[in-house]
Amino acid sequence: MAVYTHVSAEMMARFLDDYDTGELISFKGIAEGVENSNFLVETRGGQDGHRFILTLYEKRVDPGDLPFFMALLDHLAMRGCRVPRAIADRQGVQIRELAGRPACLIDFLEGISLSAPTPAQASAAGIALADLHLAVADFSGTRPNSMGLAAWRDLAERCAGQWQQIDSGLEQLVSTELSDLEAHWPGDLPQSVIHADLFPDNVLMLGDRVSGLIDFYFSCTDARAYDLAITHSAWCFSNDGRNFDTSLSDALLQGYRSRLALDDAETAALPILARGAALRFTLSRAYDWINTPADALVTRKDPMAFARRLAFYSDPANARLFA
Amino acid sequence: MAVYTHVSAEMMARFLDDYDTGELISFKGIAEGVENSNFLVETRGGQDGHRFILTLYEKRVDPGDLPFFMALLDHLAMRGCRVPRAIADRQGVQIRELAGRPACLIDFLEGISLSAPTPAQASAAGIALADLHLAVADFSGTRPNSMGLAAWRDLAERCAGQWQQIDSGLEQLVSTELSDLEAHWPGDLPQSVIHADLFPDNVLMLGDRVSGLIDFYFSCTDARAYDLAITHSAWCFSNDGRNFDTSLSDALLQGYRSRLALDDAETAALPILARGAALRFTLSRAYDWINTPADALVTRKDPMAFARRLAFYSDPANARLFA
Repeated sequence: MAVYTHVSAEMMARFLDDYDTGELISFKGIAEGVENSNFLVETRGGQDGHRFILTLYEKRVDPGDLPFFMALLDHLAMRGCRVPRAIADRQGVQIRELAGRPACLIDFLEGISLSAPTPAQASAAGIALADLHLAVADFSGTRPNSMGLAAWRDLAERCAGQWQQIDSGLEQLVSTELSDLEAHWPGDLPQSVIHADLFPDNVLMLGDRVSGLIDFYFSCTDARAYDLAITHSAWCFSNDGRNFDTSLSDALLQGYRSRLALDDAETAALPILARGAALRFTLSRAYDWINTPADALVTRKDPMAFARRLAFYSDPANARLFA
Repeated sequence: MAVYTHVSAEMMARFLDDYDTGELISFKGIAEGVENSNFLVETRGGQDGHRFILTLYEKRVDPGDLPFFMALLDHLAMRGCRVPRAIADRQGVQIRELAGRPACLIDFLEGISLSAPTPAQASAAGIALADLHLAVADFSGTRPNSMGLAAWRDLAERCAGQWQQIDSGLEQLVSTELSDLEAHWPGDLPQSVIHADLFPDNVLMLGDRVSGLIDFYFSCTDARAYDLAITHSAWCFSNDGRNFDTSLSDALLQGYRSRLALDDAETAALPILARGAALRFTLSRAYDWINTPADALVTRKDPMAFARRLAFYSDPANARLFA
């Protein structure tokens, strides 16, 4: 949540010389996104709109994945989804370089990211997720899920010996769940490209309407129902994971299903997929927690917020939520 | 250069309920300003414009000074200067509270901050500074300069024993200059409210035209010629202070003088005022350098960049620049 790379206004103005976007009139670093540097760019007099996000890709995004992401966003936009496309320069190039980093000039979308969505907003998010799944039916790109089941044991092992600094019961919970999920993970569900990180942060809303889905940098090929489970884990609890909200859950699932029916295997799999989603974020947050100094300006996200969700989803009594 | 306080979009939307600014449609933390939290706010449907900066005042700004700053900005705007005014809510209140901090909703101004201005741009900055001094002629507010001559010895003493970690010659340079400036500082120059921090960062430009002066949080009552000297030290050198640019210097001084003549005492004082300006930023940067961990995400500004300017201005041969 910071600007990692300095870009001067003059550098930005020269960068824009290759685009049909007009004259630079405002340029501000913004504090958001995964670990990239983002700038709000405003121009006037050009043909191609007037407000953009400039993203410089720092360490977490593999530059080799950018063509996949950009093709996905173009495809989704073409199919009517509200997503930020990368603007092409006059040579038709979307992925450029600035300040030594891969850089894309991206559509600016209106809308605000909610911290405490209502059921109506959760329903709209469910609909938007299903529409995304429908829109990629004829998208040919694929990308392995680098944060999927296969990655979890390695991530857990990289936290070995450090769990205690987070919570005394965490190692046992992770170990039990990991073994059980590896043994029972469903392998034959309908797949497509999925967003894989559709937290409220990544859904722009105007009132109860979704005005944009953003931050596709974890998007990959995986089970569609797993995407719904990730979204469920991200939307239906208080931030600290202590309180589950049935009305948000019902609204999200109903919204999704109103556009795209789940088959019996998907419905039956949702409880285990939700455990997987909660474990995935528990693990990535635990790894970041252990590897981020406590006094860093970057706020560490609490792994326990997802460990609590994991415990919730692991309770067989809660499986009925997905029925 | 970061967002220190979290404000949710919902909190912001409720905050805006008290203003005639319409519905919130975008809200992003921006990475700029002194040590405040700043957000770019966009609305639609309101009477009072549509784009704003929300500033939450963190530690460096004394809340007791805010009424002075806001009255100054209102006065300057009324006199035709392009400065960001604080928006009043429906009760007429400009200084509010949000997330436990003093908070102002402020005009958004177009323009970009240059890293390497040209002489034409330096001239425009000089004109804008003189216009600011002319515009405050009938402004009744006053504020002591908390970073003026009287504060320098204390600041130097708080760096005692730490100079070596910056540079081996710095303690001697500061000590000699401080004594000499205290002995010879001119006390009877024309005063007014001054900006006192008019770095290129704080001048928004569109091409060669100044579109806004911002960041008035050091503004105070002091010698007008000292404000020109501060601006000179900020605009006429390479960032690291190693290279002085005569053409920028000539353009800045000429721009200022084209609007507001300097009297003989002011002209004669410019060399010592410039030494004072360079010492002031050497000291504040040295203090910050010593008190900021090297691995903090906040970039420490190099005190030597101003120590080199101080050495430059101290060379009697360079006094002729101001003649």
